[in-house]
Amino acid sequence: MLKQVIIVRKDLKMPKGKFAVQCSHASVEAVLISDKEKIKSWQKDGAKKVLLKVGNEEELLKYYTSAKKLRLKTVLIKDSGKTFFKKPTITCIGIGPDAEEKIDRVSGKLKII
Amino acid sequence: MLKQVIIVRKDLKMPKGKFAVQCSHASVEAVLISDKEKIKSWQKDGAKKVLLKVGNEEELLKYYTSAKKLRLKTVLIKDSGKTFFKKPTITCIGIGPDAEEKIDRVSGKLKII
Repeated sequence: MLKQVIIVRKDLKMPKGKFAVQCSHASVEAVLISDKEKIKSWQKDGAKKVLLKVGNEEELLKYYTSAKKLRLKTVLIKDSGKTFFKKPTITCIGIGPDAEEKIDRVSGKLKII
Repeated sequence: MLKQVIIVRKDLKMPKGKFAVQCSHASVEAVLISDKEKIKSWQKDGAKKVLLKVGNEEELLKYYTSAKKLRLKTVLIKDSGKTFFKKPTITCIGIGPDAEEKIDRVSGKLKII
């Protein structure tokens, strides 16, 4: 089973719309660097996406590094800071789609949003 | 300027996580049926995504039909109804990326979330 995971900073307290746009950025950018066959297979199974939360930027970057080390397709999303945020702000990361077990080695202990 | 638009039903009162996943589905699925050169150009400009709201399914389907008539790349997202919803439920649509003016002919009057 393939899934995609999006890990978001909860300390930013983003409103619903901002939050959803940041997650969509992570989801799309991770898909666009992923293997096409993997994407097709993931779509066939319902394109599972799981949102997880971390407490702050430092923690988020730790998961980013761990995912990269496992050679998972991973993207870091930085908001340009022109609307809700007053300065450029790292908001979330996107991982995969990839095998559920492989992604869980990175983010298996995080809580779902 | 290229943008992508995601139109979501506000009557469903989805919680933050569910809402963001549905938007991500719409965003990714619309990207995956779009022209590659258009995607690249959209990414270069910051991959603008705009969330808009409608009151119910009937209204959403009206915008879906209008976008299709203009030959905009458009996807309809239906949740399988196994968690938050008790039955399969159409939640949102994704349009583009495409030229801002062209998409605005469909959704220009809708309110941002």
